[in-house]
This record gives sequence, structure tokens and C-alpha cells, in this order.
Amino acid sequence: MNLLNREFMQQLNDHSLNVDLFLGHFGLEKENVRVDHKGRLALSPHPKAFGSKTENPYIQTDFSESQIEMITPAFHSIGEAYRFMEALQDIVSLELDGEYLWPSSNPPILPDEEEIPIAKMNDPVADVYRNELADKYGRKRQLLSGIHYNFSFDDRFLRRLHDTLGQGEAYKDFKDAVYFKIARNLLRYRWLLIYLTGASPVFDKTYIDKCVSLGHSDDSKSYYFPNMNSLRNSVCGYRNDKPIYVSFDSTSDYVQNLNALIQQDDLLSIKEFYSPVRLKTAKGLNPLQELLEDGVVYLELRLIDLNPLHKIGISKDTMHVIHLFILFMLLKEDEPFATEDQIIADLNHDQMIAKGLEGMLHDSRGSQVMMKEMALTCIREMQEMVQLLHPYGEALLHILDGEKEKILHPELGFAHQIKAHIQKSTYMNYHLAKAKAYAEESVKNGYRFVGYEDLELSTQLLLKAAVKRGITFKVIDRDENFVVLMKGDHKEYVKQATKTSLDSYSTVLIMENKIVTKEVLKERGIRVPNGDAFRSLEEAMAAYERYHDKAIVIKPKSTNFGLGITIFNRAFSKEDYQQAFEIAFKHDQTVLLEAFMTGKEYRFLVMGEEVVGVLHRVPANVEGDGVHTIEQLVHEKNKDPLRGRGYKTPLEKIQLGEAEDMFLKIHNHHWGEIPSKGEIIYLRENSNISTGGDSLDYTDDIPSSYKALAVESAKAAGATFCGVDMMIEDITSEASHSNYSIIEINFNPAIHIHCYPYKGKNRKADEKILDLLFGEQLD
Amino acid sequence: MNLLNREFMQQLNDHSLNVDLFLGHFGLEKENVRVDHKGRLALSPHPKAFGSKTENPYIQTDFSESQIEMITPAFHSIGEAYRFMEALQDIVSLELDGEYLWPSSNPPILPDEEEIPIAKMNDPVADVYRNELADKYGRKRQLLSGIHYNFSFDDRFLRRLHDTLGQGEAYKDFKDAVYFKIARNLLRYRWLLIYLTGASPVFDKTYIDKCVSLGHSDDSKSYYFPNMNSLRNSVCGYRNDKPIYVSFDSTSDYVQNLNALIQQDDLLSIKEFYSPVRLKTAKGLNPLQELLEDGVVYLELRLIDLNPLHKIGISKDTMHVIHLFILFMLLKEDEPFATEDQIIADLNHDQMIAKGLEGMLHDSRGSQVMMKEMALTCIREMQEMVQLLHPYGEALLHILDGEKEKILHPELGFAHQIKAHIQKSTYMNYHLAKAKAYAEESVKNGYRFVGYEDLELSTQLLLKAAVKRGITFKVIDRDENFVVLMKGDHKEYVKQATKTSLDSYSTVLIMENKIVTKEVLKERGIRVPNGDAFRSLEEAMAAYERYHDKAIVIKPKSTNFGLGITIFNRAFSKEDYQQAFEIAFKHDQTVLLEAFMTGKEYRFLVMGEEVVGVLHRVPANVEGDGVHTIEQLVHEKNKDPLRGRGYKTPLEKIQLGEAEDMFLKIHNHHWGEIPSKGEIIYLRENSNISTGGDSLDYTDDIPSSYKALAVESAKAAGATFCGVDMMIEDITSEASHSNYSIIEINFNPAIHIHCYPYKGKNRKADEKILDLLFGEQLD
Repeated sequence: MNLLNREFMQQLNDHSLNVDLFLGHFGLEKENVRVDHKGRLALSPHPKAFGSKTENPYIQTDFSESQIEMITPAFHSIGEAYRFMEALQDIVSLELDGEYLWPSSNPPILPDEEEIPIAKMNDPVADVYRNELADKYGRKRQLLSGIHYNFSFDDRFLRRLHDTLGQGEAYKDFKDAVYFKIARNLLRYRWLLIYLTGASPVFDKTYIDKCVSLGHSDDSKSYYFPNMNSLRNSVCGYRNDKPIYVSFDSTSDYVQNLNALIQQDDLLSIKEFYSPVRLKTAKGLNPLQELLEDGVVYLELRLIDLNPLHKIGISKDTMHVIHLFILFMLLKEDEPFATEDQIIADLNHDQMIAKGLEGMLHDSRGSQVMMKEMALTCIREMQEMVQLLHPYGEALLHILDGEKEKILHPELGFAHQIKAHIQKSTYMNYHLAKAKAYAEESVKNGYRFVGYEDLELSTQLLLKAAVKRGITFKVIDRDENFVVLMKGDHKEYVKQATKTSLDSYSTVLIMENKIVTKEVLKERGIRVPNGDAFRSLEEAMAAYERYHDKAIVIKPKSTNFGLGITIFNRAFSKEDYQQAFEIAFKHDQTVLLEAFMTGKEYRFLVMGEEVVGVLHRVPANVEGDGVHTIEQLVHEKNKDPLRGRGYKTPLEKIQLGEAEDMFLKIHNHHWGEIPSKGEIIYLRENSNISTGGDSLDYTDDIPSSYKALAVESAKAAGATFCGVDMMIEDITSEASHSNYSIIEINFNPAIHIHCYPYKGKNRKADEKILDLLFGEQLD
Repeated sequence: MNLLNREFMQQLNDHSLNVDLFLGHFGLEKENVRVDHKGRLALSPHPKAFGSKTENPYIQTDFSESQIEMITPAFHSIGEAYRFMEALQDIVSLELDGEYLWPSSNPPILPDEEEIPIAKMNDPVADVYRNELADKYGRKRQLLSGIHYNFSFDDRFLRRLHDTLGQGEAYKDFKDAVYFKIARNLLRYRWLLIYLTGASPVFDKTYIDKCVSLGHSDDSKSYYFPNMNSLRNSVCGYRNDKPIYVSFDSTSDYVQNLNALIQQDDLLSIKEFYSPVRLKTAKGLNPLQELLEDGVVYLELRLIDLNPLHKIGISKDTMHVIHLFILFMLLKEDEPFATEDQIIADLNHDQMIAKGLEGMLHDSRGSQVMMKEMALTCIREMQEMVQLLHPYGEALLHILDGEKEKILHPELGFAHQIKAHIQKSTYMNYHLAKAKAYAEESVKNGYRFVGYEDLELSTQLLLKAAVKRGITFKVIDRDENFVVLMKGDHKEYVKQATKTSLDSYSTVLIMENKIVTKEVLKERGIRVPNGDAFRSLEEAMAAYERYHDKAIVIKPKSTNFGLGITIFNRAFSKEDYQQAFEIAFKHDQTVLLEAFMTGKEYRFLVMGEEVVGVLHRVPANVEGDGVHTIEQLVHEKNKDPLRGRGYKTPLEKIQLGEAEDMFLKIHNHHWGEIPSKGEIIYLRENSNISTGGDSLDYTDDIPSSYKALAVESAKAAGATFCGVDMMIEDITSEASHSNYSIIEINFNPAIHIHCYPYKGKNRKADEKILDLLFGEQLD
């Protein structure tokens, strides 16, 4: 057998189109039914955190109120689409209170048909449509969930292909022809794809209703048919109530046929055309009209089961297999696909469901081929395709080897594996355990936005919060954490989470400049450390007499990382004083001398007119238990998943380095020492989170008088988002004229430290940013 | 004779108060009458450019509409106050269209009394007051102009003095006692100050009216009395219609006496108390009440003539002399100053006006001292004061030596000198020539804000424009060109002239990032160079095939000074391409490849929704005249006062350096060559203004379609202030889809290049910034 069009492949190679063939845009959509902790369909409403069901482009409901649909944008790689779906699942899971995402295409324990809640869409047309579906197919059948795999070629590839092979036809027509050819071949060979991906072999007895009738009675709660690997792709699954055949020969025929079906009321709308492959347009508001005008934009493969073996219901390998299968469908010889061919394709599909690959392939031309043999041929030719066209295809070949094994050994297939697991447990227990395990993984990902881990944590948190409420985003410049957030026509450009349009340029410049900051604060009567600014060592030395008996800080005007700062909190000599200025002048041409403030430093995160969080940072430390050594206590504390290395986690691991070693020695401790229970051993002088310090949330413990001062300070600078650093003598007394001082105002405050403090609550600073940028979430 | 209180001086030295004694706050106020080009009183209204007469704190009208009053804020040094007054004079002079500032205290050629326009204040109270003054003193007398010298001690000095010498009394009382002592002594010794500063010896015959009656008739147009050095300080000058004596012993007596005079209608208001010395408060809204409550804030010396020998009417030396005189009045032994002492002080004053120093000093105690002898004693003791208390007083001693010479040789005095000049010319011609010469100096200062030359030119221009319309300012951080502009309660923080509250932070970040800029422009359908962004050399090399036959630019993403940029506008090898990327990657981790744009580059300065100016920059060049060598032509072109060195002028001098040398050689030229008439010889490849390039204004030559694109580009980024750099193929055709491209948008555009271009009009970008920040000037 020979399916590949080798001349076509040669042309691709000749025109250096082979590499770009493998480029494309990939997207996933999937549904998961929500269940309670016992595996019963959740009857609660769609969580409000996800905003409007119709406007959130990432998280919606499908047919049922209990059926969450997650949708990724299109990405340039399978990996990105995969990771985004994982992130969506993390975001959704974290909002489900005592509920889980059911990991199978087949429904969980269902109530009676009428108790299954149909999604309330606040849209009469959408509500009527869902009720019609319920009547026509039954609510239970509509709960079958799955994955849609969206694919389009790289536009530059298609255009170059058109330049090379197009024979004078318009680019749109050429492009449509490419996608229709693939659609025809996909429909014809879909039996193989279902064989390779099917993962819904067993179902619960509560599913038995309108859609499945069993001639025999049985005590067991879960059911399966001997060779069926996908209930969803079976006659009992998710397909039109009667077979529908339309032309796939051209866009115009296709559109014409479908319009006729809708006019004859054979279809409620184009959405009811449950073809395993759909030819999609960009907007999808009026898909058939858009098809005629703009042509095909991408392909949607709708026959993929949720695979409970994988957290997001599909593995990256499977995604690659589907991609290669699509390319194979392009490179295959074309074959006619009239109605009779479509009927034969349906037959092959159903035969595969009923018998696996153990039959003869139906064929309108009467050829005699075993299904299994054809399956192996397809895999072999896909490998050949990769070998001929992909310069670095090793990994793909390896994946295809795995698929070949599944054909040779049916027990390696997903459905067989799942069935085996269920037989060792129960349908419900197996899936529920998986659901809970995946939810646990999502909790562990907590602060992390899977696929965006290279961004700063604050930006990751902001984007996750945006996705949750359906604000779309685009990372415009990854290095700079520069994103644009979009909701309808409303766009907000945001850098590093808190640099937004809500702060004016002059506000930022005020905060950036310590002299100016003090000026605006003093003008509002807010306490700041007294001091002077010097522009030369001579000036500074002339002021020595004025300050020689005071506790002072000497610091460069504009550096921010503690560089060049000297603190004199006890007596100092003129030489010390001079040296401190010499050091500071290396960092800036203006050096500030300020009164040294006593008390503890607190970071007030101000957003709008509100203090969202208050933190106090303490140096790296461990608390003794009377049993473990300091070293052991450090290792234990470092196990906290919030602690990592290199600013990718909310806290950093405590190091066992020279600085810590030295600090312990100076304070008469050593690593092997066992501190008594409750004793706190510090390991650092400085309290930076970056050197293992702890962030302690004091938001609920700080008197509101200090919060009012922080808000007033932000207002003085005109700031919407800022971090106000305040020294406070004693937080048990209210703020007065003498017991606090504002050290500085920071214009790009980190938010993750308030969302994931070492001790304390998540203050949801990410949500607050979005409230201010886009308005608060409505109930 | 011995006037100094040496014990007091010793105490100052003992308590290290001597240095701070010389600190203080200095301010000047002065009036100048406006005249036309023939030296006649200008009858035109006060220029609208100066905004509201009552609200502009720097530039107002005095009694007459034709009498401009200029007021400096208080400065820490004489130099600053002096320079600010010069700047005010520059600002005012440049707005006077065909008019000049009359440089003498004595009026120019006056029309009849009734034709002298009284200032229209749009304030019934102020208008009534001026009319009452006109009736009481005559309008001509009110035109006598002069300088007020404002002084206060450094507050820290006064507080330390209070700590040292105060005997339990409140600080306010102590401070008032200090100022009242000085006031008493100043009034007693004012004859000497008038001798040293008087500069209005001659007057025009048109002044003769109510205020001067001459018993004899005379043909000459200008008059003087034999020894009179100051008409303004004479009985014919600016003093109350009858002598007024109030107590200077204490604040309460002083206030009580003055209140009584006002109640008796002896004074129209406190403003009519024309004492040579006034004790002033901060706000001055209700001065007597404020005096009682807050005490004296500063001293105002009102007896200083405008000195036509100096541009601003006073020299820095004279300002120092007055300062030392004030300090001397503090350190002198105190003497009683009852009404009889005040009458004697008036006598001495009038005697000095009539006879100079050639008489006996009147004295209530009957002592017999020659006025001249006392004058020399005062100077000697002032020198002693400086020697004893000022560690670096050399320059001051030298100034006092000069004053001594004036006493010994009356012909060295200002008045004698001026009289001599007038005798060689005429009263009118002498002063008008001075007026014109000073106006010329102001034109030369043009772009420069005297006293603020260390600031960037754009900031200097903005501040000058602000002062002109009465917006006050404070330079908060000189190094950073950070200022605050204030009008009533409205404050605007501005850095580098165009970084303001009108641009949001995100807007600036968009402009700062080339990738993001292109993104937002493309979204609006604005043309930008096509290209790619690469994050590794490998990625870049993989794209070689795509670009190898195109004209391209390779540049680091974020650097702005042309560093790391390579242009390939003809064929290039793979090695060239690689090298260009290697260089660019040294400057940034992301490198952009862009299509090389042809055409000329234009800078569009966008402010609000308006293109304020359009510039094209051309490389340093000279135009031949068929006579001079290239080198000579460069020297000639460099004489333009707009050209300087180090960014302190709108243009830079063309250099005769290596780069220029090399460039000439490559193009087969040499310095000694004589280009033919009209031939343009370029000396540089790059067109930067900083290397001698020319800025050519095209604002009126560019079709509005390009301007609309520039405004649209600014809007895309959300910018209020920006510079849009556009490549245009040919400005004779309107913008189309293919003949322009936006290269970048700059968020801190220089404005001085549009205000002072090499060729073209001043586009008043400085004014436009203020219009946008504070609203446009009303007519």
C-alpha cells in the first residue's frame, strides 16, 4: 500500500517548505463535569469568580451548568497549548470549593435526567437552544465531555506553498482546498485516530437512560461493551440523531448543503452539526457566511476523549500524534469523498468501536485490506513523512513507535489500561481518586502560571487572575514582563504587574526620587526622616558638627538595592563619617543624610485608596524544637514549596553559605547546635526575602491610623499602586506625630509577597489590580 | 568714633555664629516704565503674555499701566536674586514689541498728567486706590520707579542667636527686636545708603508739574539740582505728602501707631506708608495683623534708585554693600529713636540730597561730626566687621574699599557718572541708548534662563515660559531637571520639561520599548518597518535566508543612542550578517531586524492632539561662497550665538576633529579647499545636532496627512507629549499606504530644537506644554 504523495513531498523539500510544514497554531478546548467529593454531579452554580459565562473566553459552561469548558488561545507550539490548558485547569481547580473536575469523557454518578442543571446563560436564544438539545438528545448524553483539538498551518507556509504550487487560483481558494482535503481524509481515516485516542470504555449505570438501553439486567454499577474504547464516539455517544452527509468538496458546496439542512430544520443550528471535523472561521458569529467570505481559518477535531490517565485529559505525545496525523492527511493522495464514501467512513468508524482493528477495512473500491494492516501502514508512512521532511524528527519517530505498539498490542491502548484500573477498583473510585490527585497538583502549582514560569511571580499571578475572570492577555515582551490585558475594547498595557496606566509618569518620577518624595510627603504633614542632601564631600564634611552626635543613615540618592548605604546608630568618628560619604558618592552624585529611625519596618501595599496588605520582613531564621540541629531545621524549613531559588517562588530557600556561617559564629552559634524549643535562631542581619527572610502578614494587626497614613502618602505622590515603607515604634499604639516615619514609597511593589506570605492570608493583590483596571467583578 | 558693639561680635565668634550671620534670604522688586522707541511713555496696555496682573507673582503693573513691576522670590544668595531679576528682565524685554524698559528711576518723556494711564486692575478696590493716589500725589510722581531690596536672616541663625542671647523672651519677640533694631538704625543712617546708591540726578522737563515747581525758566529739556543725586529720594520725589512718624520701638507700638494713622485718614492704607524701611510679613494680606501674630518675616529697603549703569538697575556689588550695611546696623550700638530722632534723621537725609556729604551731621546729642567723616567711619567699621566675623571676606573688603573711594571722591558716585554721561548726550538719548542696549542683551540671552543655565535647555525654556505667565516654580532636584510648577492650588511635577502627569506610566513604557511600540502602531494600521525580534544568534542566523537579499537594519531592542546598530543597504554576506548580530547582542538580549527605510527622517513634536513642530536634521555642513575655505566657513558658521558646546545651546558648534577630517578625505575634500558659491560641503555622516548638525523647521511645509499620522501614532501609544520619528519618501506628495514609515516614538522629546531651530520659526513648544498642563492663556 502506498498512501503518500511522494511527488508533493519532493516539492516541499525542493522549495525548502519542509521545515515550515511542521509549524502551525495549536489550541485545545475541553469540558470537565464538576463533581462533589463523592463523585456525584455537582448541582452548584458555575463559580462567580469566572465572571460572565458568555464573555470569559477561557472558562465557560457547556451544555450543563455543571460542565466547565476550558479554552486555550492558539499557540505556536503544542507545548504552549498543553501548558496553557494545564494552567487553566489549575485556575479552575483552585476555585472549586469541595468540588473536583471529573477526568473522564463519560459522566460521573448522575441524578435523574430532569435534575441535571442546564446552563443558565442569561441569553434567551442560548437558553432555548440548550432546552431543544435536552429534548432531542437527553441531558445525560449532552454531559459526555471531550477535547477539541484546533489546528491551522503557519500562514507564511501556506502562502509560500501557494506561491509554489498554486496554479493561478486565489490564495483563499488554495488555502480552503488544503483544509478541505485534510478534512476529507481525516473523516475517512478517523477510525484510526479514535483507536489511538479513545479513553472512555466504561460508564456508570446512572448514564443508562434515553441514550443507552441494555437488553439485559445486571447488578454491577459500571458497564462496558467488549471492544468499545470510546462510548462518546459510539452510537450511544455524542453524535447527531440521524446521520448527516454534506459535501466536503468545496467551501461553497459545504456551506450550501449545511444551509439547506438548517432551513429544513434537520439541524437546530450549525452548532448541532456534530461532525468529527469542523472547518472553522475566525469569529464564528455567522460561521457559514464567514466561510464563504474569508475561507477556512482552522480545523477543529472533535473526536478526542478526555484521557483520565493525564491531568489535563490529553498527553503532549497524543497532541503530537494528532498533529502528524493531520499533516499525513495533507500529504496523502486525495480520494473522492462523495456521500457513499462518507457512509463507508462511518461504517469503518463503528466497526472499529465494535471490534477494534480486527476486521476488514470497508472500501468503495472493493479492495481487501485488514484494518490493522492499514493502521500499521499509516504509522509507517507517517514515520516516512517525518524522516523525509523533518530535520530533527527523532522524538516524533519515537512517539510514532509507541503508537505502532498500541496497534500491535491492543492492551497498551488507553481504553484497555483504564478498563484494567477500573476493574481493580470501581468506575467511581478510580476516577474520583484521579480527580483528587489532579486537584492536589493544581494546589501545588498555586502561585505558578504553568507555561509562564519565566515571568516574574507578580506577573504570573496577575495573568492567572486575569484568565480566571476572562480578561484576555498577550505577553508582548517576555523579558520585560510587558503584557496587554484586554476585555472587549478595553486594553490595558501593564509591565511588571503594577506599572499601569493608572499611575501618571510624574507620579512615578516623584517616587523614584527620594528628595522629591520627601518633599511631597512633608508638604502633606507626613513624617519623614529629617536630613540633608549633599552634592559634594566638602559640603557633607561641613555638616559634620551638626550630625556628629546623632543616629544617622548616609545613602546615595537614587540607588535602591541597599548599595552604598551606611548606618551609624552609635558614636562615629569624623573619619567614619567621611568614609561613609565617599562610599555613597561612588553610587550617586547626590548623597542623602537622614536621621536613623528606630522601630520596625512595615511594607504597606496601597492600591487605589486601600491598603491591600501589610508585611513585616524578618531575617532568615529557624525556630528550635529541642531535637534538631540548626542545619537540620534549615533543611526542614526549606522543604516548604513556597521556597525556591532565583525569585521564581514567593520565598527563597535559606542558604547555608559563608554569610550565614559568619553570622552564626558572631552570635556564638554553630550549625550542629540544637536550639531549645521555641528559640529563634537568626541566620542573617538583613531581612530581604531574597536571602531567605520571612514575610509576615500584619494586615489585620496594624491599627487603621497607620493605614490611613500609608494611603495619604500614596495620595501625596498621586500614586494608585505603591509600596509605602514605614518605620513604626510600636504597633499596639495608634499613629501619632512622633511614632512613625515614612522611609520611602516604591512605585513597583511586588505583589506575590502579599499573596503568598510566609505567615498570613493571601491578600489577593492580583485581583485588586484587575478591579482597579477593569472594574470590580459583579456578582 | 566707635559704633560697633564689640561685645556682641565677640559673642558671635564665641558661639560660632559668625559664619551663619552672613547667611540670609535676598529678594528684589523693581519697577521700570515702558517707553516707545523715541523714549516716550508707552501708552499701550500691559502685555497679555504676562497673564493676570494680580495673579502673576513675578511680573505685575505698579501704579501705571505702563509701569512694569518685576519681583524675584527670596533666594539664599545675592547672586541668585540678581540673576533671577536679570532673567525676569530678559523675559519681559522679549515680549515688548517695539518698546523698551526705561532704565532710570526718573520718568521718560511724559504726556500731560491726565494722559498717563493708571493701571487697570479689574479690582474696584485697587482701582479706587490708584485714583486716590493720582489725586493726592499726581500721576507723574507715582511714575518714579525704584528697587526694593528684601532681606531676612537665615532662620537657623536667628534661632541659634536666640538660644545664645535670648533672655527668656519668646523667639518671635526676640526676632522682632532684631529686625526693629536694624530698622531704627537703617532709618537713622539712611543718608549714607542714599549717598552710595542714588542714581537719579537729572530729570526731563515733562516731569515738572505738580511735584516740581521751578522758580526760573530755562530752555534746556533736562534739569538737575547742583548736588542732588536722587530725585526720587528728594522732597520732589516719592515720599508721603506730610511727614509721618511712628514708633519703631516694638511691634505692638508700631502696629498701634499705624492703625491710628489709617483710622484718622492720614493714610489711605498701610501701603501708603512710604517709609524707606518696611517690616514685612509672609502673606501681606493684612500686614499689621500678621505682624502682631507672626512677627517680622523680612525687611524691605525701599530707597534704592534704578541705576542706569547696570542692566537690571543694580549691581551685585551694590547688593553686597546693602547687605553688609544691614548687618552693620545689627551690630551697631543701639540708640533711642523717638520722634525727635526721626525728625533729625529726615534732616540728615534731606541735607545729604541738597549738599552731599559736605555738612555737619545733625545729632540730638549735639555731637559735632562731619557727615563725610561719619561716612568713612561707617565704611571702616563695616570692614572691621567683615574682618572679625567673615572667614573669607576678601572680596567684600574690596567692595567696601570702592565705597570708601566714592566718599572721598564724589565724582566716582553713580549720580555723578550718570550726570556726566547725560551732559555729553541728552537725558533722553543717554537713557534710551542704555534701554536699547539692555534689550539687545536680553535678546542674546534668548533661550537661556539666567541663573538656571545648569538645567537642560528644554527645562530652562519651560521655566521661562512659566515665569512669563506667572506660574511659580521650584527646582526640586537640579541634577534631574525636576521641577514643580504651581498656580494657586494646582501643582504639576515635571521632569525634563516633557515628563509630566499628562502621560501615564504605561504610555511611557510603551514608547520605551520598540517591540511594544510597533505592536500598538501596527494595530492602528500605521506603517512601521517590517521585521523580526531575535533572542539568540541561532534564531537570527536561521532567518538569514529570509532577509539576505533585502535592505535591513539590525539593532538592539532598547538602546537609544545609535549604539550597536548596523545598516545593510546593499548586498551583505552571511558573515557580515552574523557580525552585525553579534555586535547588537552585546547591547541587549533581544535584537531587532527591520526593513531599511528609504526617504528622509522627520521629527514630529506632538503635544496633545497637535503637531507643534516638524524638524528635519541634516549633518554638519557649510555652504560655499566661492571665497572662503571650508575651515573658514566652519568658523564663520560657528559664530552663531545659537551654537555652543555641551548641550547648553540649541545647536552645537561644528568641530574640526578627526571624524570631520576623515569624512572630508573620504569624499575627496580638504579643509583648505574653497567650495564654489552655493555648494554644500558635509562634514559628518550622522545628522545629530550634538555633532554640529542643523535643525531645519518644516512645520509649515509638511502636508497635514503626515501630521495626522503623527497624531494618530501618539494616540496609539496614549501619549500627550512625544516625538514621532517618521521616514517620508517625498513630502511633496500626501501620505499614502506606502510612502512613509514610523521609526519610533520618543517619550521625552527635546523642545528647544523646535523653539530655536537653525532655520525656521520658534514653535513655542514651551508655551504649549503650559497650555496643556494649566489651560491656555485667556485673552
